[in-house]
Amino acid sequence: MSPLALGIDIGGTNTAFGLVDRKGKLHFSGNIRTRDFHTAEGLARQIYEEIIPKLSSPGELAGIGIGAPNGNFHQGTIEFAPNLQWKGVIPLGEIFQKVFGLPTKVTNDANAAAMGEMQFGVAQNMKDIVVVTLGTGVGSGFVCHGQVLYGHSGMAGELGHVIVEPNGRQCGCGRKGCLETYASVTGFKRTVALLQEQRSDLHAEPQTSLEEISAKTVSDEAQNGDALALKAFDFTAQYLARGMATAVAITSPEAIVLAGGLARTGALLTAPLNIHLNNELLVIHRGKVPVLLSGLLDQNAAILGAAALGWDH
Amino acid sequence: MSPLALGIDIGGTNTAFGLVDRKGKLHFSGNIRTRDFHTAEGLARQIYEEIIPKLSSPGELAGIGIGAPNGNFHQGTIEFAPNLQWKGVIPLGEIFQKVFGLPTKVTNDANAAAMGEMQFGVAQNMKDIVVVTLGTGVGSGFVCHGQVLYGHSGMAGELGHVIVEPNGRQCGCGRKGCLETYASVTGFKRTVALLQEQRSDLHAEPQTSLEEISAKTVSDEAQNGDALALKAFDFTAQYLARGMATAVAITSPEAIVLAGGLARTGALLTAPLNIHLNNELLVIHRGKVPVLLSGLLDQNAAILGAAALGWDH
Repeated sequence: MSPLALGIDIGGTNTAFGLVDRKGKLHFSGNIRTRDFHTAEGLARQIYEEIIPKLSSPGELAGIGIGAPNGNFHQGTIEFAPNLQWKGVIPLGEIFQKVFGLPTKVTNDANAAAMGEMQFGVAQNMKDIVVVTLGTGVGSGFVCHGQVLYGHSGMAGELGHVIVEPNGRQCGCGRKGCLETYASVTGFKRTVALLQEQRSDLHAEPQTSLEEISAKTVSDEAQNGDALALKAFDFTAQYLARGMATAVAITSPEAIVLAGGLARTGALLTAPLNIHLNNELLVIHRGKVPVLLSGLLDQNAAILGAAALGWDH
Repeated sequence: MSPLALGIDIGGTNTAFGLVDRKGKLHFSGNIRTRDFHTAEGLARQIYEEIIPKLSSPGELAGIGIGAPNGNFHQGTIEFAPNLQWKGVIPLGEIFQKVFGLPTKVTNDANAAAMGEMQFGVAQNMKDIVVVTLGTGVGSGFVCHGQVLYGHSGMAGELGHVIVEPNGRQCGCGRKGCLETYASVTGFKRTVALLQEQRSDLHAEPQTSLEEISAKTVSDEAQNGDALALKAFDFTAQYLARGMATAVAITSPEAIVLAGGLARTGALLTAPLNIHLNNELLVIHRGKVPVLLSGLLDQNAAILGAAALGWDH
């Protein structure tokens, strides 16, 4: 029995990967910039170069699991991911299978995070959860009755593309007002930029480049009581609460788990979030759906969850 | 083996019930006005009086399944149903079990309709569907990977209470802008009333009593090309499409099935609905999620689906 699986978490900005054993222990991890690779083949070869020297024998690796934006579990593809430069339908599973010569499963990055939380994180022993990843985009993984929700297309669980403000902010998906445009790290920076520009319309395109804004700095300012920074968190929390209330009305989870970059701001986000959530939730759900912070923020839940797929043949 | 189950569909206005065999054949059906009964006990006793004389022997009846608004499968209760006069938490399963001396299961009325469509209607052989019932309220039953979605609370699948217009129409649930306030028969009448009053704000409370409006009449007028009637259908379809796009983004069904009173208007609703749906859906889902009309509109899918629960011990 091969003791390790390779878990890969492809994000819009970074790709993290690691060798994981069956107990969820990470034996080696690496990190590369996704945008440095014009093709998925290039990314696969780079990971291969870094991983192979770490193995004591080729047989040590059982398989590969990948979490990626718009990952299709049924097809093993990435399909039209707005936050990646690889356009159209990419046969990601096939590509990695060729490069490594090992069985490869693909899922949505947030589904992988959900599997990680269920197996090793804060959602152990839960059967119905929603994991929301607040990164470059907003991803979500739904677990219902103990199973990851894939849907007919293999691409269920796109809470980031639920419209929370009709005719709101322009989204990369071509529509307007998606949760992602408000509650991702990018959306948060957009809010900060608009507040700094003293704009009355917080749904507009900011003039400031978002590169100039650091979520970490804004978070430090909010910690020190800065009014603008606190307002940015409150505004973000309001939309996140609206999207979550929709998720709860449809799937009724036991808890919601927050992961990804913005989740690291902790109570700065969850304090206003819980207040808004209480207004947005249906009466029957109020006070009954705790918002938990990922138990794997420093370990990358998505690597661990994706790795779990790597054994799943 | 007892050959019949009693299926009961409790709606805000009417309660339909029937004796159903394992092939989905309805052997007897009855209909009473829900609002005539101040208590659920009264309703149970009335159904008992009507059903017992139809049985050749008491052993002919295997069990009872009930679909009811806000029905909780796990608890066997109705909880805070805004469209019923029975307030709070009603132990419906227990009540029927006492009156009939038979095992009784309770579920959401729309979940029952979904089970009916899967077993006997247009969704046979499908594993992932959403059934949306457009009646006094808007209900929804989600089937994912072949199983009705109950969620942790037992009350998942409340698409009618997804907010499609922030700060929109006042809903019976206490919040504003729920899909139900636009796409139920009641919401449709509200739209007609506001259009007839020549109001510019279609989210306001109309002054006309909704009792004066007949959805059937409006439907006939639309059939004859009446502009106001057609506008009412288009407006309703737009919001329904928005709610459906949310359902598809989260659960990715193979098809959406429309049931309930407003579904009887057929193409008057589905023609504008398909146009709006194409705008509202994420690109990856466009043209891939057909909207089907219930195959059991004249047979009551919810009675058949609820009856299926009656055998399920």
